[in-house]
Amino acid sequence: MSRIFSDNESQTLADIIRLRRDVRGNRFNDKPVSDTTIDTLLNAAMLAPSVGYSQPWQFVVIRDSNIKQAVQQTFVTANALGSQQFTGDKRAQYDALKLEGILEAPVNLAVFYQPSETAVLGQTSMPEMGKFSVVCAIQNLWLMARSLNIGVGWVSILDPLKVKQALNAPESAELIGYLCIGYVDEFLAEPELKQKGWQKTKSPAEVIFKDGFN
Amino acid sequence: MSRIFSDNESQTLADIIRLRRDVRGNRFNDKPVSDTTIDTLLNAAMLAPSVGYSQPWQFVVIRDSNIKQAVQQTFVTANALGSQQFTGDKRAQYDALKLEGILEAPVNLAVFYQPSETAVLGQTSMPEMGKFSVVCAIQNLWLMARSLNIGVGWVSILDPLKVKQALNAPESAELIGYLCIGYVDEFLAEPELKQKGWQKTKSPAEVIFKDGFN
Repeated sequence: MSRIFSDNESQTLADIIRLRRDVRGNRFNDKPVSDTTIDTLLNAAMLAPSVGYSQPWQFVVIRDSNIKQAVQQTFVTANALGSQQFTGDKRAQYDALKLEGILEAPVNLAVFYQPSETAVLGQTSMPEMGKFSVVCAIQNLWLMARSLNIGVGWVSILDPLKVKQALNAPESAELIGYLCIGYVDEFLAEPELKQKGWQKTKSPAEVIFKDGFN
Repeated sequence: MSRIFSDNESQTLADIIRLRRDVRGNRFNDKPVSDTTIDTLLNAAMLAPSVGYSQPWQFVVIRDSNIKQAVQQTFVTANALGSQQFTGDKRAQYDALKLEGILEAPVNLAVFYQPSETAVLGQTSMPEMGKFSVVCAIQNLWLMARSLNIGVGWVSILDPLKVKQALNAPESAELIGYLCIGYVDEFLAEPELKQKGWQKTKSPAEVIFKDGFN
């Protein structure tokens, strides 16, 4: 028989999902994250669904401060370019935000997609499915981290090629996510960009449709 | 103070993650899935992380059998093309697999990415981040479903343009995932493609690296 989860257990998951946050640099504290704990997170990631059971993920656990510094440099450059895409008050608000915690987080995790050299079941019509499998792994890890009261921040303001260089990644590997991981003193009650008025929460009526877009 | 999760609660999440399965058509039963339950699933999806808090997702809940049939037709065509990418025993094995449950599932869910017309914070260097946010929403929903003892199957053997036509989707919307949702009598103990020998489980040593790929 399959395991049946109780209402309480389902509610626990709902709470973890609701209280998960993207954590920036100013929130990590000094409590060490053990290799065993990182293994627990990676085990959750490796149990994600993957197209054709291809498990096309690769994880690089980074504790080396030289690598962190190299990645942080690419953030600085990419962030200056990103800022230029906003104008007026919005750019001022952008520039005031702390958008990464690369150096502050005790552990960084670079997550790659490694394409298969042969056909993958389920990926023949939608080639991006391999990358999407890797994203499912990241979301598993993120929720697992929150359940262990560990913060995760996903940094996407980076030049993926420079990150690959810093990690000696093979040409074929594609960077999907770069995560900053560490214990935090507090998880914000709401997403920071919502609290600060950057973006409002969409209502269900805006994004849910029945039997088509009509 | 932030909610602190207990070891038991973290273990519950680990169990949900470990026991989640991709469910095919032959596994769904007739128990109805209420609109309230679908709302619970969608609520979990809408609490996913999204780049720049952009929430770039759109969900189409499908109960209409004409739409299901149109989508199932595109599966049949795409699946015949997919099969041709395998040869010999592998093709025979492919052809013997049941790879979708579009008609058997009481509810289908098409999940779209709706690109923003203006710049999105965090998406300026890695344009795929918007799509990845939508995948995070799908993974939240999938875990929530498993905690409610509801099966989900992700069908990716489809022509996304034909699915969009069947749903009258706007040109700008991009299909990310097509899910079949319903109660099941049983969740398999292991992924079906593993049980059937299609693909082996990768070892941690194959996919985890420390401080680079050297």
